[in-house]
Amino acid sequence: MDMPIPDAAIIARKAEIVAALQEVLPPDAVIHEDRETKAYECDALTAYRCPPLCAVLPASTEEVAAVLKLCHRMGVPVVPRGSGTSLAGGALPTADCVILGVARLNDVLEADYANRVVRVQTGRTNLSVTGAVEDDGFFYAPDPSSQLACAIAGNIGMNSGGAHCLKYGVTTNNLLGVTMVTMDGTVHEIGGAHLDAPGLDLLGVICGSEGQLGVVTEATLRILHKPEGARPVLIGYDSNEVAGECVSDIIKAGVLPVAIEFMDRPCIRATEAFAGAGYPDCEALLIVEVEGSDAEIDEQLAVITEIARRHNPVELRESKSAEESARIWLGRKSAFGAMGQINDYMCLDGTIPVSSLPHVLRRIKELSAQYGLDVGNVFHAGDGNMHPLILFNANQPGELEKCEAMGADILRLCVEVGGCLTGEHGVGIEKRDLMVDQYDPVDLEAQLRVKDVFDPKWLLNPAKVFPLASTQGRRAA
Amino acid sequence: MDMPIPDAAIIARKAEIVAALQEVLPPDAVIHEDRETKAYECDALTAYRCPPLCAVLPASTEEVAAVLKLCHRMGVPVVPRGSGTSLAGGALPTADCVILGVARLNDVLEADYANRVVRVQTGRTNLSVTGAVEDDGFFYAPDPSSQLACAIAGNIGMNSGGAHCLKYGVTTNNLLGVTMVTMDGTVHEIGGAHLDAPGLDLLGVICGSEGQLGVVTEATLRILHKPEGARPVLIGYDSNEVAGECVSDIIKAGVLPVAIEFMDRPCIRATEAFAGAGYPDCEALLIVEVEGSDAEIDEQLAVITEIARRHNPVELRESKSAEESARIWLGRKSAFGAMGQINDYMCLDGTIPVSSLPHVLRRIKELSAQYGLDVGNVFHAGDGNMHPLILFNANQPGELEKCEAMGADILRLCVEVGGCLTGEHGVGIEKRDLMVDQYDPVDLEAQLRVKDVFDPKWLLNPAKVFPLASTQGRRAA
Repeated sequence: MDMPIPDAAIIARKAEIVAALQEVLPPDAVIHEDRETKAYECDALTAYRCPPLCAVLPASTEEVAAVLKLCHRMGVPVVPRGSGTSLAGGALPTADCVILGVARLNDVLEADYANRVVRVQTGRTNLSVTGAVEDDGFFYAPDPSSQLACAIAGNIGMNSGGAHCLKYGVTTNNLLGVTMVTMDGTVHEIGGAHLDAPGLDLLGVICGSEGQLGVVTEATLRILHKPEGARPVLIGYDSNEVAGECVSDIIKAGVLPVAIEFMDRPCIRATEAFAGAGYPDCEALLIVEVEGSDAEIDEQLAVITEIARRHNPVELRESKSAEESARIWLGRKSAFGAMGQINDYMCLDGTIPVSSLPHVLRRIKELSAQYGLDVGNVFHAGDGNMHPLILFNANQPGELEKCEAMGADILRLCVEVGGCLTGEHGVGIEKRDLMVDQYDPVDLEAQLRVKDVFDPKWLLNPAKVFPLASTQGRRAA
Repeated sequence: MDMPIPDAAIIARKAEIVAALQEVLPPDAVIHEDRETKAYECDALTAYRCPPLCAVLPASTEEVAAVLKLCHRMGVPVVPRGSGTSLAGGALPTADCVILGVARLNDVLEADYANRVVRVQTGRTNLSVTGAVEDDGFFYAPDPSSQLACAIAGNIGMNSGGAHCLKYGVTTNNLLGVTMVTMDGTVHEIGGAHLDAPGLDLLGVICGSEGQLGVVTEATLRILHKPEGARPVLIGYDSNEVAGECVSDIIKAGVLPVAIEFMDRPCIRATEAFAGAGYPDCEALLIVEVEGSDAEIDEQLAVITEIARRHNPVELRESKSAEESARIWLGRKSAFGAMGQINDYMCLDGTIPVSSLPHVLRRIKELSAQYGLDVGNVFHAGDGNMHPLILFNANQPGELEKCEAMGADILRLCVEVGGCLTGEHGVGIEKRDLMVDQYDPVDLEAQLRVKDVFDPKWLLNPAKVFPLASTQGRRAA
């Protein structure tokens, strides 16, 4: 992946820039020594690394505004960073940038149960938002796999989803308002604890904008009442296509499980060896979970198991206890770790219309044969958010490039069937050059112009999201 | 309400403009005689009227593109129009504008049950979207009161809601993709039948943009499976505040009815006289509806009636039959018509955090006394979307102005408690000058700049949404 050539003039001014930052932040909030800045050289897309010029850890919206204003004036690029769990390189530094980490912005500002909202600083981790309200019976719905570590700032940046988003929606459906600082240091209040907002819906365009428009420091999030209970059913099939058809039929029938998770044989085997969840050895496994009272659960599962039976499952096991439910989910949640034990892998993240599932799984198998690289599939099938894992050997020269080429082909396939390049991981640097497969030049240009509005100098999170070629003239200007 | 002074030079070129439009459209699609253009002189905000220069009725995206390209080249303002049901003057013409009506764009392009989406042209009415899929067991959720007449184009423009949006969300939560033509005639495809989309979420900013960014000609909408059943319960209280507290407690308890509707005594009396729905004569009435199987309905209503009882209702009546349910809803749906029978009224549309309901109702009563104008309240209480109806006599000089001043005070009150100027009717011309109460200059400027991107000459739907003063320099440029 090409990165823009860092600006040598900025790097030469490092001492001056660090000194200026130290004037607006406490001494321990400016990290500039090489052994320390190394901690920020990559995010979870570890194939790409580059230490930043320096890193700052502001502790308030005012400090964020001061940093951005300063960098804007000095013409220094800024890369915002949540917890650094991006799988798409969304927080990858450039050598001439200041990393702006939000880790110190981690307070709960208000928990307002009557309006079912909570207001937090965005450095707070996803799971600890629920942690702050669960004793009172509430939870925050979006649940990315990295929820123990990932920050709300990153969730907003990538419009993150999770296993349970089939029912509850992704971040954009649970975000009501933000405090955002634009690159020139202006503090904007957008949305709030109320329905909708007049005029242009800037909240919509900010959510999922991958740090291109501003740094979100505070967020008003919708919280939900915890359901009375939940129960998963495990359904095994002898073919990926049939499992895909079963998912498509469940959706078509109109029942709305909270989650429909899909794993294929390579993932099932790796997971079973790793976590011992008691999964059957079959081609494809579905975990379908429903929520509600016991009566509601029984009723929904009756519809789902009836559909499942029509497709001749080799396994159909309804959880009988909380322990069994936990064990079923333990397997799914260990899947990525389990695959990582046996191989290097690249985790893709495309979305497709659910009805295309059987076709897309068949084509992925063909591509796997063509490239000679194994693929494991584990994903949120209910909303068509796929996560093919391409297995490769990072130590063998050329394998990463081959893997990336195959990944690009799979994502192009998603676009071809009417889906898109990314469901919840974002474009980052990883899928930047595939944006031309998703968008016509005029549609891409419309996005670039919106970026122009918020960050006219193109200093914020450079070289991400948009193909480098399309932004060249703008960055120079 | 001030409108910009129409451009006399454009009006002088009417013959030339009409001739140019006739070159790109069939003869019957260009309406230019005075007695015919009069049909487009206002929308449902009938206090303001102005016949347009002419009106066009294109029948395809290509024809829309041809019209916009032509008007862009000739510098003629364009006002897009759905069915003209806007209560905020969203489709009010200027004397120098071309009205672009989408009424002929009314086809269903695709009903795709496996992916639970339908693609329609946007001139189609809201209710007829459901009409196209209901035989197969599906429906389109947002249900504005005007759903028999209002067009999907207008629903997208205003991000319309409805009584059942508490559970199913408003338009933005049910819109997956659009075909939109910008003022220069460029056709954009945005979103589609898949989850999310990479890059900036332009769909989010388009929904609710009140025709400021482009003309949406086609839309991909999410459809849902019809619930097994639904049942309303009627709850009467002796005080608005107590009814407000009951709503707040229901929300806080975490149950999610599909609708919580609120009517106060003036509305109850007018409605009862008009529709004979059997409503009790009390201070405040709630209609709470839940959906699901019989077991699910029983369970949810048990929680709701338990909360209702805690507040000592004077009436608590669960519907016992489909007929009784229909009668309960008939009253609510007739409320606006009933109020119109006895008075002229101005229908406001503000949103507030649900917990502020008792306070806001109290303040409205005080304002009512202060201005000497009666107010009826009938609204979607569950999501805090208020519709105070200010009663006045349109034939008495000065009453409209007094009514508008009081309306502005009520909407400012909504903003003050953390809510906003409009839930579903839009800003239009009605609330244009109140935008400065909602937004700081910098936040408003961010919106104006996004408008600059899509419509640099500011020709589309002029003089709406933004305070005239803030757009002056832009329109001149």
